[in-house]
Amino acid sequence: MSALAGAALEVWVNGQAGMTVSALDRGLHFGDGVFESIACVGGRARFLRLHLERLGEGCARLSIPTPPAETLEAVVRQLAQRDERAMLKLIVTRGVAASRGYAPSCDQPATWIALRYHFPQEEHCAEEGVAVRTLALRLGENPALAGMKHCNRLEQVLARAELARYAQPPFEGLLFSRSGHLVSGTMTNVFLVRDGRLLTPSVDRCGVAGIMRRVVLEEADRLGMAISEGRFEAAELSAASEMFLTNARLGVLAVSGIDGRKVAVGPLTRRLQAALAPRLTMTADACV
Amino acid sequence: MSALAGAALEVWVNGQAGMTVSALDRGLHFGDGVFESIACVGGRARFLRLHLERLGEGCARLSIPTPPAETLEAVVRQLAQRDERAMLKLIVTRGVAASRGYAPSCDQPATWIALRYHFPQEEHCAEEGVAVRTLALRLGENPALAGMKHCNRLEQVLARAELARYAQPPFEGLLFSRSGHLVSGTMTNVFLVRDGRLLTPSVDRCGVAGIMRRVVLEEADRLGMAISEGRFEAAELSAASEMFLTNARLGVLAVSGIDGRKVAVGPLTRRLQAALAPRLTMTADACV
Repeated sequence: MSALAGAALEVWVNGQAGMTVSALDRGLHFGDGVFESIACVGGRARFLRLHLERLGEGCARLSIPTPPAETLEAVVRQLAQRDERAMLKLIVTRGVAASRGYAPSCDQPATWIALRYHFPQEEHCAEEGVAVRTLALRLGENPALAGMKHCNRLEQVLARAELARYAQPPFEGLLFSRSGHLVSGTMTNVFLVRDGRLLTPSVDRCGVAGIMRRVVLEEADRLGMAISEGRFEAAELSAASEMFLTNARLGVLAVSGIDGRKVAVGPLTRRLQAALAPRLTMTADACV
Repeated sequence: MSALAGAALEVWVNGQAGMTVSALDRGLHFGDGVFESIACVGGRARFLRLHLERLGEGCARLSIPTPPAETLEAVVRQLAQRDERAMLKLIVTRGVAASRGYAPSCDQPATWIALRYHFPQEEHCAEEGVAVRTLALRLGENPALAGMKHCNRLEQVLARAELARYAQPPFEGLLFSRSGHLVSGTMTNVFLVRDGRLLTPSVDRCGVAGIMRRVVLEEADRLGMAISEGRFEAAELSAASEMFLTNARLGVLAVSGIDGRKVAVGPLTRRLQAALAPRLTMTADACV
């Protein structure tokens, strides 16, 4: 595993330890697959049921045969136990191409890859919040792919590259759609608060339906918060009294600066962080 | 090579015969790469200089370090010589990921893969022309990726799957952009003729700037034809007196049916086919 050079600690391919895939894999040729990034805490995979559910939905939308959930689950649980904290990545592709072209064939088994990574040390201070900045890159819109965590991620690659060009890169870049609506960060979903109401962009034209986004929406509903899922323009960003980011690893991360404007870490953010803490630290029972 | 099961006859990875890539390759994780499909005729790679030029441009736009052109050229020439006819595919990815996220690192060498395939037996009759049909899928638009032959090809995969659902699938499906303009076929560029003028969609919002599209545009200009590159709506398709498809393998392929409407194979199509024939059969000198 030394050749992996620190990027991954362990790799399984189709249920066996291994570090290579076929050069004919459709994941490599076309990004023809889906993936999940799963945070593991206390030796257990956080929100595993939700991740496997979304993976199955993505495969179904792309007509990729999903590997048996129990097989994936067993491997994830095994990898999660290796350490106190880890990040796992599950990739499912349409498998080895039976021919040269784009057309999928019906009878190829999927390729599935499980990778274990270090849980990174945070460079930001979660208490103080992080800075975000609107990027110039706009996301293309395609309802046929929207919401899915698929492997066509060149837009996110370009967005991260744009972010890195800042002398002092902010923690996250904000992405708008080509039609001018706020979508997400490069690796996070975003929530705004305005007049006590929680706002988050729809992901039916582009963007990813994040697992933590779903968990937050369910928790906010349980707490009786007013919620609007919809289309928000840049003006909404300027008017927001609070903002936070979500993803599987970060949970709920407060934003303290939007495009140079200081924002206080506000009460709805704190309330959601407190309510979700037991599930994020895996000290609650219902951590599926 | 038996495990390749007919999909590819020969595979080179980073300059050596081999059939696997790292499971950490960014091509596999994100479709983070570009590719070329090169037709080989008479043991030589057709329009090789143009293909290598576009590959280099795509790498430059994505900030992927391009493998030396002379190295790629030498491998392509070697593979082209193996048989009278072949299709080659060159893939260049951003290489093995140095970390888990989308952010590209600066110092990773690219991965490049060369694959040799059979030149397929055509199932259509080039003389009679082929049928095309407008697909329901719309292409998302992103100028940052438009024109490039990158490895984010899920839209094309879905388009081919839509085409295959027809009881008698037409030869090619036509794709419109989300904003309602004709873009291309699933694997071809498209040309229309109206009032003696050659029309082809711009590829600055989506679509691929095909090599054969470029060759045809240059040839049409040389022949003194009137040319419009622009945005065309569905009405333009209904009004066209001629239509043809282009790609590296097919050259100039006449269309005889558009969404059920019969179209004659017309004079501009025939004239371009005749003018390009020496370069496509590699009997002319200037076959670079």
